[in-house]
Amino acid sequence: MYEREKLKWNGWGWADTHYHFAGNEDSFWRFLQAELNCKELRSNPALALEQVSLPPCRLSQAQLGELQAKIGQGKVKTSHFERIFHARGRSFSDLLDLRGGQLGEVPDAILYPESAAEVQMSLDFARQHQLALIPFGGGSSVVGGVNSARGPAQAGILTLDMSRMNRLLALDTVSLTASFEAGIYGPQLENILQARGFSLGHTPQSFEFSTLGGWVAARGAGDRSNRYGKMEDLLVAVRVLTPAGEWKTLNLPASAAGPDLRHLIAGSEGLFGVIVEATVRIHPLPAAQHHTGFLFQDFAAGVQALRQLAQSAHPPAMLRLSDQAETQFLFRFRKTPDTPSRGAAALKKILSWRGYTQHPALLLLGLEGDHSEVWPVLPLLSGSCLRAGGFPLGAKAGESWSSSRYQTPYLRDSLMDRGIGVETLETATTWSRLLPLYAALTASLQQSMDAGLAAGGKPDERGFVMTHISHCYPEGASLYFTFAFSLLPGQEQAQYAAIKNAACETIVAHQATLSHHHGIGAAHAPWLVQEKGFLGLDVLQAIKAQVDPEGLMNPGKWL
Amino acid sequence: MYEREKLKWNGWGWADTHYHFAGNEDSFWRFLQAELNCKELRSNPALALEQVSLPPCRLSQAQLGELQAKIGQGKVKTSHFERIFHARGRSFSDLLDLRGGQLGEVPDAILYPESAAEVQMSLDFARQHQLALIPFGGGSSVVGGVNSARGPAQAGILTLDMSRMNRLLALDTVSLTASFEAGIYGPQLENILQARGFSLGHTPQSFEFSTLGGWVAARGAGDRSNRYGKMEDLLVAVRVLTPAGEWKTLNLPASAAGPDLRHLIAGSEGLFGVIVEATVRIHPLPAAQHHTGFLFQDFAAGVQALRQLAQSAHPPAMLRLSDQAETQFLFRFRKTPDTPSRGAAALKKILSWRGYTQHPALLLLGLEGDHSEVWPVLPLLSGSCLRAGGFPLGAKAGESWSSSRYQTPYLRDSLMDRGIGVETLETATTWSRLLPLYAALTASLQQSMDAGLAAGGKPDERGFVMTHISHCYPEGASLYFTFAFSLLPGQEQAQYAAIKNAACETIVAHQATLSHHHGIGAAHAPWLVQEKGFLGLDVLQAIKAQVDPEGLMNPGKWL
Repeated sequence: MYEREKLKWNGWGWADTHYHFAGNEDSFWRFLQAELNCKELRSNPALALEQVSLPPCRLSQAQLGELQAKIGQGKVKTSHFERIFHARGRSFSDLLDLRGGQLGEVPDAILYPESAAEVQMSLDFARQHQLALIPFGGGSSVVGGVNSARGPAQAGILTLDMSRMNRLLALDTVSLTASFEAGIYGPQLENILQARGFSLGHTPQSFEFSTLGGWVAARGAGDRSNRYGKMEDLLVAVRVLTPAGEWKTLNLPASAAGPDLRHLIAGSEGLFGVIVEATVRIHPLPAAQHHTGFLFQDFAAGVQALRQLAQSAHPPAMLRLSDQAETQFLFRFRKTPDTPSRGAAALKKILSWRGYTQHPALLLLGLEGDHSEVWPVLPLLSGSCLRAGGFPLGAKAGESWSSSRYQTPYLRDSLMDRGIGVETLETATTWSRLLPLYAALTASLQQSMDAGLAAGGKPDERGFVMTHISHCYPEGASLYFTFAFSLLPGQEQAQYAAIKNAACETIVAHQATLSHHHGIGAAHAPWLVQEKGFLGLDVLQAIKAQVDPEGLMNPGKWL
Repeated sequence: MYEREKLKWNGWGWADTHYHFAGNEDSFWRFLQAELNCKELRSNPALALEQVSLPPCRLSQAQLGELQAKIGQGKVKTSHFERIFHARGRSFSDLLDLRGGQLGEVPDAILYPESAAEVQMSLDFARQHQLALIPFGGGSSVVGGVNSARGPAQAGILTLDMSRMNRLLALDTVSLTASFEAGIYGPQLENILQARGFSLGHTPQSFEFSTLGGWVAARGAGDRSNRYGKMEDLLVAVRVLTPAGEWKTLNLPASAAGPDLRHLIAGSEGLFGVIVEATVRIHPLPAAQHHTGFLFQDFAAGVQALRQLAQSAHPPAMLRLSDQAETQFLFRFRKTPDTPSRGAAALKKILSWRGYTQHPALLLLGLEGDHSEVWPVLPLLSGSCLRAGGFPLGAKAGESWSSSRYQTPYLRDSLMDRGIGVETLETATTWSRLLPLYAALTASLQQSMDAGLAAGGKPDERGFVMTHISHCYPEGASLYFTFAFSLLPGQEQAQYAAIKNAACETIVAHQATLSHHHGIGAAHAPWLVQEKGFLGLDVLQAIKAQVDPEGLMNPGKWL
């Protein structure tokens, strides 16, 4: 199912799938040009695969022969495509490198283990030959988490593609847990569970192109994390192979037997070892699901309503509040019939009269579970939104978002083809600090995009930023920013680095987290000490030294 | 409020409070003698305080003077009472030591810091003079977690009594979090919060005599942990002073910025440093509360019902299922009117006819929250219990338990005064492994108690064991055992050690956890490697070496 040749090597998703504009392509580009004040869009094609030049594989024929003998003939790959496909994840910066053929380090060989024993052999080989070893699940990291890198003493790089380790190992329908090999992709895992009446309930936007092991390694979050928890909450037990041996936690509902080591492996991003198995909580398939939406007069009013929902006795499974920019973007490009109905026009007028169109903020909520968790709860939550000043938009409001959710990441490639850079970043903080952080980060992104354009000779152009809140907790929530800007040819990486640096500085200055669910990878590594503290980082270094004393595992990342 | 002189130094709780038998004392002793097949109970008085002899304080006058100058005159104590009070926690084994005056190591001085700065001074002093430093909150550990011990190179022992650090530091009613100094006792904390309309919702049986820092250090659990979570779930942020410096986590709702270090501090039991502050989730005071009970024909039927409740869409805040032995014990000694009513007699007959009295298992459930979480949910949960074969006992069933909950620990002292040993132990596992673990542990406790009595010349006597399940999760639950046996004079510790050893061996053989909420301390330390694995323990050792390279903090415990 996940043959690498069927996937884009320099963009998002399936090779034969592109963003589908659904008839509004012209209006989309017009909107974007207006927002960016960009007079014309240029053509900015990516290099073809064969135009990307690679350094020769540093493994000798003898070494490759040894690997093939140990792990198996068809499980060791060194082709041009494979080495490029595995060289990067899918951050904006990664795509710049891939599209421009600026790869520097790439893996010398890609291994496809089919069992924990073959992972162990790969570890042994890496140690014996002093090679960097990079675990690779779906490769969807947007923080440089799977990027090729090696330590100064390392002779080369092996990337461990886990996608063939995709089996169900155990299903305990009494305890509601399932154990899988870690390389299983989201749809594979859900197909197995749903055929048996269960679901994990973890559907990040990367769902189609990310794996269980990756979710655990990066502490991922799905859209319904309010209900099911983040990946670390869904994780019951885990098995990791490290250069120092096997590291396994017991299958337990809870424990007071010392520190909880699961929480070291969740978030370890391949630096401690290779996650080979995970046992997760599963849930009966929900009998009922319902989405609805409300419009608020401004973002602050929406935040107030959102917090009340998150702190209520019945928080919905999914909550998402868009700021003005994102709300206007969503309304403009939702899939609507070509000729607006009279009813829609009348609604628009009413909303305008009542002050909902100047600074609108769209709140979407999704309920799911058994019927008693949906239908009696809906009026309670709707009442809460109405009292907080929300205007009810009904069930359709959420449908456009949820139907196009897995499509959206493809849009970035279309934008880059036209010389527009687009990236996202996310953080989390407590409710009382959320609006100041939102304001500061929006300002930081806007200013740094604009300053870069001015310095690059485009003083009239400006960046675009839009934001939503998702993943709500009683004590706070995550903020998710999407920002776009004209690319300065030849200066793209520096242009982006300045924006990213300013944003990270703002985040740490507000004592927010560098990531709620993307991870640290290489992208956030320089700021990690400000989040964890010197001693926190020393502790992580000490753990690393214990489990991977030679530093073989995923070098150049957060430690 | 928590002046040490007002507390028992060799037993549970307030010095002037003893177990109140409420008119059924004679029947209690008769029951116990019958269960233990023990012909007569003896008098087994504890030593008086002045009969306990202590080694001289190993700190010089100069050292004591330096401490007093640094930390404050009234904050350094070396009295006979203080040294004994802080020498042990409140495990059965600790009480044997205290009652018999067999203390061995005791602290040389007790420090009462009133600020983080004074904790830091204590740490500096301990390092400078190579003294062991033992953080002490309420001292209610039942696993030897605060017991006096020192490393071979350490010249003495300081115990750090945290009880004067009991202030509210910050209250964020928007984010529903509160920050406290770590030495605050349960009732102090709840008084502060409840006066403002909030509650932490954490009420372990030790609630009156344990502190926030202790709850975090030992990963405690309150009776309503189904609703509020264990202490590690309630913990938003924490500040620890270690010999290597300050270790602090940010105040965040969730994060993917690498491993979650809160989960290293929760469960650290004073080995990594001194917890000086904690920020916790708070909750609006529940508007509604309701308890009810059901009787099941046997424990297995009750477990089935319990699991359905824990896995339902609306798990109750509190769940507790007693096995046959505990159910019969509870029914026998609940507070009932002296003359049973006709109704009660009729009920008894009905229960007997319908098969509920041969192997009864009592299920108590407690709901709380806003009205929508209690009254519409009650019929759903009751229906689930009825369909699972439960006989409804109504609201009174839970009242006896909840009204006597904080009284029960006093009973142990009364039993020890009559030569009866009694202790508890707890574990947790998944639902599918729960009944086999229950059977194996019950058998292990029974056999090892009986074997000890036989070897000690009491072959006719037998031990008594009763069990309940509490703290339920979708994937499993905790098992809590209470066991009692005649003490063999002069051999009490060996007698108990054989029982405890056999139980721990059984737990690890079943891959259950050594503790769900009591911790590891000294008592479970020898088995920890079997739960965490060699590499897991190496990782913990590496963290310890990083934050406490000289091993000053709480020696002789789980590492």
